[in-house]
Amino acid sequence: MDLLAPGMEPPPITRFDVETAAERILGRVRRTPVLDLGPFSLGGIPGELVLKLELLQHTGSFKPRGAFNRTLSAEVDDAGVIAASGGNFGLGVAFAARELGHRAEVFVPSTSPKMKIDRIRAYGAEVRVVPGYYADALEACEERALHTGALFMHAYDQPEVVAGQGTIALELSDQVPAIDTVLVAVGGGGLIGGIAAWFAGEVRVVGVEPALCPTLTAALEAGRPVDVQVGGIAADALGARRLGDIPFEICRRFVDRVALVSDDAIEVARRRLWDEIHLVVEPGAAAPIAALLSGAYDPEPDERVVALVSGANTDPGSLID
Amino acid sequence: MDLLAPGMEPPPITRFDVETAAERILGRVRRTPVLDLGPFSLGGIPGELVLKLELLQHTGSFKPRGAFNRTLSAEVDDAGVIAASGGNFGLGVAFAARELGHRAEVFVPSTSPKMKIDRIRAYGAEVRVVPGYYADALEACEERALHTGALFMHAYDQPEVVAGQGTIALELSDQVPAIDTVLVAVGGGGLIGGIAAWFAGEVRVVGVEPALCPTLTAALEAGRPVDVQVGGIAADALGARRLGDIPFEICRRFVDRVALVSDDAIEVARRRLWDEIHLVVEPGAAAPIAALLSGAYDPEPDERVVALVSGANTDPGSLID
Repeated sequence: MDLLAPGMEPPPITRFDVETAAERILGRVRRTPVLDLGPFSLGGIPGELVLKLELLQHTGSFKPRGAFNRTLSAEVDDAGVIAASGGNFGLGVAFAARELGHRAEVFVPSTSPKMKIDRIRAYGAEVRVVPGYYADALEACEERALHTGALFMHAYDQPEVVAGQGTIALELSDQVPAIDTVLVAVGGGGLIGGIAAWFAGEVRVVGVEPALCPTLTAALEAGRPVDVQVGGIAADALGARRLGDIPFEICRRFVDRVALVSDDAIEVARRRLWDEIHLVVEPGAAAPIAALLSGAYDPEPDERVVALVSGANTDPGSLID
Repeated sequence: MDLLAPGMEPPPITRFDVETAAERILGRVRRTPVLDLGPFSLGGIPGELVLKLELLQHTGSFKPRGAFNRTLSAEVDDAGVIAASGGNFGLGVAFAARELGHRAEVFVPSTSPKMKIDRIRAYGAEVRVVPGYYADALEACEERALHTGALFMHAYDQPEVVAGQGTIALELSDQVPAIDTVLVAVGGGGLIGGIAAWFAGEVRVVGVEPALCPTLTAALEAGRPVDVQVGGIAADALGARRLGDIPFEICRRFVDRVALVSDDAIEVARRRLWDEIHLVVEPGAAAPIAALLSGAYDPEPDERVVALVSGANTDPGSLID
C-alpha cells in the first residue's frame, strides 16, 4: 500500500486531519472504552478479540464525532444546519446542534426505525420523513438546503465528517497495543474512511458489508463508487446507495479487503452480543461480529482483532425470546 | 476510620487477600472497562462521573469473580459445588463450574426472574426453585449440602467470595486516577465488602440500598447484621434478608455512609441509562445511579465519583416505551 504511487493523488484525509478533529471535538464526545475478550471468545472466534464500544457514544452511535467536527469547522448562522440520514447521522447532527445552540433540520427515509426518528425530534431537530431509502432523503435535503442557506452536513462524504469519525482510530491506537486488524461496518464509508485514513496501512482495515448493501465491494470492483441496490435488516444504518468519493479514495489505498455477511449472520451476532456480553447492538453495528462468527473474516490464531461496535439504536425488545 | 481501634479485630479481608484473588482468577474473568461521563452527566449530576461497566462481565454480573476465587481456593470432588442465589450468584457459580469442569447445583427463590433461572440451567447447573426469597433458597441449599458433600459456596459471606468481588476495586485503582467516591449497591454485602476492603478508607465507599431492602442500614443501626423485610423491584439481586457477618466487619470500618433509594428512582435510573448511555441494566445495578439522580447521594462539584454498574440480567424488553 504505497502512499503516493505514480499517478495517485494524496489521500483526501490524512492523519493530521484526524488529529485536528480530535482536538476540535475534545470534551464534546465520549472517549469510548474497549473490552478485551481474549482468545476464543464468543464461542470460539480465533485470534484475540477486542471490542471498541462506540455504541456507548452520545446518541448511541459514532456519528456525533463527524457532526461536531463539521459544525465546529464552519460558520453557522441562524439558518442552522441541515442533513439527511438513515437515522444515526441525524441523531449526531441534532445532538451537536443542540449542544452548540444551532437550529437543525433532518431528512430521514421512511425506512428508518421509529425510535431513531423520535429521538432526532427529542433532540430538538425538525424532522422530515421522505419515502424510500437514504438516497431519497438526501435528494430532498439537498434541494431544501439551497433554499434555507443552512450549513449542509453530509453523512459521509465531507472531509470534516470523515476526519471526525477517524478519531475513533486515534483513540484505539492509544487504548489497544499491537492491533493487527480492525473490522469496520461500511455504508457510505465515512466511518471506515476515517479509520483507514488514520491507520494509513499500518493496521489491516477490513470492511464488513451486509450482502444486501455492498457499496464498497461494488466500488472496489468498478474502480469507482457506483450505485447498488440496498435492503435488508441493516439498511437503516448501512443503506447508502453508493460509497462516498472521499471514502473511496481512502479505501482503495488503505482497506485490505471487504467481507460480506448475510442478514441471518447479523441476527446471530446481535443475539450473541446480548447473550454473552450484554450489549444491545443495532443490526449494522453487529456486522463485524457477524463476519467473525460466520467465518467471512477468519483471523489467524495470534491475530489481535478489534471489532468496532458502532451503534445501539435499536429496539431492545427485539432481543426477547 | 482507624484500622485497629482498641478492641477491634483486624478486618476479615485485607488488600492482600484481594490481590491474591486477582492473581488466582486472572484470565477467568473479564477486566471490565470504565466509561468517563465527565461533569454534569445524565442531565446534570454534579461531580465527575465514571461508570465501571461490570455488567459486561461474564454472565452479566460481577459474581463470577467471587465464584472463581472460592472454587479455585478449594478442593472440589465429584459432588461438585452447591449454592443458593437470587440469580446472579447462581449464574456465576454455574459459569465457573462449567469452565472448571465441576458439577453445580443451584437453589433459587421463586421470586427470581425466569431469565436468570433459564440461564443458570443453560450453563449446565441443576436448578432447584424454592418458594420465597433468597433466604428460603439458602436454607434449602444448606440442608442439601450436608447430604451431597458438594463444596458450599455462599453468595456473600465467605472470605474468598468477598475477596473475589474486591478485584473490581483493584482494577478501578488502575483505571481511574484520583477517585474520591465509589457508589456500590448493597444486598448481602459481598460486593461492597470486597470493594471497601480494597480501598480500606483511602476512597469514600458509599453503599446504596433500595429502601425496600435496607440490610446495611439496619446492620449499622443495630451494630450487627439483623433480619429485615425485603421486597421491591431489586429484590432478586439485593434481597438478602440480612447482611453477611464478613461484609459487616468490613463495612462498619470502611463504609462512609448508606444512601437509600426508592423503586421509582431505580426505574428512572434504568431508563436514563438506556436512553443516554445505551446500557441495559437490571434494577439492583441501577441503584447507584438512582442515588445520584435522586440526590440521595449529592457529590461536590469537583468530586470524582465512580458508580459501579454491576448487572445486566434483566429483560431488555422492559425498556420499551
